[in-house]
Amino acid sequence: MENFEFYNPTKLFFGRGQETRIGSLLVEKVGTDSQVLVVYGGQSAKKSGLLDKVTSSLKASGINFVELGDVRPNPTYEKVKEGVVLAREKNIQAIVAVGGGSVIDTAKAIAICVPYEGEGWDFFEKGVVPKKALPVACVLTLPAAGSEQSKRIVISHQGRKLGTGSDIVRPFASIINPEFFFTLPPKQVRAGVIDMMSHIMERYFTQTPNTDFISGQAEAALRSIMKNGLIVRKDSQNYEAWSQIGLAGSFAHNGFYGLGQKEDWACHGIEHEISAWDETITHGEGLAVVTPAWMTYVWKENPSRFVQFAQNVMGVKEDTEEKTVLAGIAALKNFFKEMGAPVTLAELHAEKLDPQELAEKAVKIPGTLGNFKKLHSEDILKIFELMR
Amino acid sequence: MENFEFYNPTKLFFGRGQETRIGSLLVEKVGTDSQVLVVYGGQSAKKSGLLDKVTSSLKASGINFVELGDVRPNPTYEKVKEGVVLAREKNIQAIVAVGGGSVIDTAKAIAICVPYEGEGWDFFEKGVVPKKALPVACVLTLPAAGSEQSKRIVISHQGRKLGTGSDIVRPFASIINPEFFFTLPPKQVRAGVIDMMSHIMERYFTQTPNTDFISGQAEAALRSIMKNGLIVRKDSQNYEAWSQIGLAGSFAHNGFYGLGQKEDWACHGIEHEISAWDETITHGEGLAVVTPAWMTYVWKENPSRFVQFAQNVMGVKEDTEEKTVLAGIAALKNFFKEMGAPVTLAELHAEKLDPQELAEKAVKIPGTLGNFKKLHSEDILKIFELMR
Repeated sequence: MENFEFYNPTKLFFGRGQETRIGSLLVEKVGTDSQVLVVYGGQSAKKSGLLDKVTSSLKASGINFVELGDVRPNPTYEKVKEGVVLAREKNIQAIVAVGGGSVIDTAKAIAICVPYEGEGWDFFEKGVVPKKALPVACVLTLPAAGSEQSKRIVISHQGRKLGTGSDIVRPFASIINPEFFFTLPPKQVRAGVIDMMSHIMERYFTQTPNTDFISGQAEAALRSIMKNGLIVRKDSQNYEAWSQIGLAGSFAHNGFYGLGQKEDWACHGIEHEISAWDETITHGEGLAVVTPAWMTYVWKENPSRFVQFAQNVMGVKEDTEEKTVLAGIAALKNFFKEMGAPVTLAELHAEKLDPQELAEKAVKIPGTLGNFKKLHSEDILKIFELMR
Repeated sequence: MENFEFYNPTKLFFGRGQETRIGSLLVEKVGTDSQVLVVYGGQSAKKSGLLDKVTSSLKASGINFVELGDVRPNPTYEKVKEGVVLAREKNIQAIVAVGGGSVIDTAKAIAICVPYEGEGWDFFEKGVVPKKALPVACVLTLPAAGSEQSKRIVISHQGRKLGTGSDIVRPFASIINPEFFFTLPPKQVRAGVIDMMSHIMERYFTQTPNTDFISGQAEAALRSIMKNGLIVRKDSQNYEAWSQIGLAGSFAHNGFYGLGQKEDWACHGIEHEISAWDETITHGEGLAVVTPAWMTYVWKENPSRFVQFAQNVMGVKEDTEEKTVLAGIAALKNFFKEMGAPVTLAELHAEKLDPQELAEKAVKIPGTLGNFKKLHSEDILKIFELMR
């Protein structure tokens, strides 16, 4: 195990009716009569009545607010800039995100850009570390990105999708009421489940030895997400199954599953280039295509890790190491299919993507991608072939 | 699952050499030239050189300090009062605990008593909720109580051992360097392992339905603690195995393993009366005697939970439900024996304890004990018989 630091001060409020606390949480943080920016996405937050509940709670607590709606999936830096202008103009003291990862990431990006004097894209492109941020509270509508507890932000700009992070961007409070997941379309359900699994797998596939405790936690979390994912796919109003997914997905990306080990993140790196190339591609669906291909390409770097995955997560075992590994990967792919996800570039409608361009972009800033195996652009080209 | 709130802002610093950060952590929290109280236990913190390292780090950071040593196992309110007088006299702004649960709990108790105008024992006996606390930082020497991340404090006074808690008593920073566990005597090793297992089991044995995710996390954590417990029992200098135990033990009591479910805590309640009766009894060893007896008495309240425990934690399965449950309990008891722990009152040297007095004291304040099955004094008498 490696040395580590871990700090996760997000206050979590979980369960039915918790969204009505948002007003008092803001009062506690920035005081009554303060100015708050409410960020949300499309029409669903309005239709479901959640946005009304949130703004009513703010009003009842004497909090003033302005709204920034229409945040889209794969959220853009343009939208962030719009929010920054608005927030500065209105002298905003805190931000409330009502939505999923795109909305929360937009809110977190606005939160670091408002007090920053330079160009906010520096955080993402130049690796400037955020030192100040407005406080952010979240009301989650989609369990997937884990942004409601995470220290990460991912934003798209000029055909690239880049991330930044720091403990100061963790929301100070997050509300998760699984009832708001009942009306999610199947595409978002599967994309969310796959995204949270990926957040655990990107950490689980490590070359750091002796990670028994965290590896066991990761394996159990993956099993629970898969089990409950299949339940909600068939029974979208199953509060208890959604609760498991909401809770697992939120912890999946707060850092716990990577404590003391070197993480990978190559699949996310490759997928970010795919959904930056075509923003109608959903991140979680892209991961369903990338992950098994990545696994097939890299497993020989540390077969025992993949045997452990096959046995402890996918519950498969064959008579040779190689067969067990491949059966594990096949079982994961089957699970993605059962969830209704695409598992090839064609099914993702991404067969026209230029492999060379993707491979070059994916390694452009870090130089190489991932840690389980350090990938160069030629490796990514080979993984690309395995996605067909 | 039940609604819940969770807030755990303790900053964790894990691994070799982390103890040298203590000075700068204090500077960050209360500024240089501040006054700090350093709390520790017996001679081991001095002999190991850890206390020197900590005070050197404080000096190097320009932090002034006074020492309060000689905190004993099953720490007393008298010692807390001694610390409170000293802290007020010296105008202490923060507390550094160098030790295990007893030292940390003493530090946390001083931290809430210093700013409190009433009698500090009110927190424990009258259920007064702490509203203010001095900041506490920990350097852990014994993985067991999990106090370095927890919101709980347990203190002994006038033949009773009582607890209090609030998120404000969580340490703001905790340092865990597994190297400091190498010299622990076998008795403390087994007591620590059993105590952290108990913190998970007190939460795992719940009547709350639909706790799939957290239950899976708990099962995996228990397996990892047992596996690595047996390793360090034989190989006391195994850094990697100690790392798993140090990490698991620290998360075992921070609240994660009880999210969304009603917890039990009857075993802790009974054991606290045993070690309050004879303070030479180590809490973790007391739990090794109480827990299997409690299990044997209560399992019929929810057999499927105990079947799940037997299969998923202890890895045993028999041809009937009852046999599986009993085999699970027997396997746990065997594990305790393998660790060298007592499993009967006689082995604990507690056979002279008055069952009637213990049973009455254990239920005195709460009225009943536990939630998996609500225990009255007559139930505790029956559990007592199972401990013989």
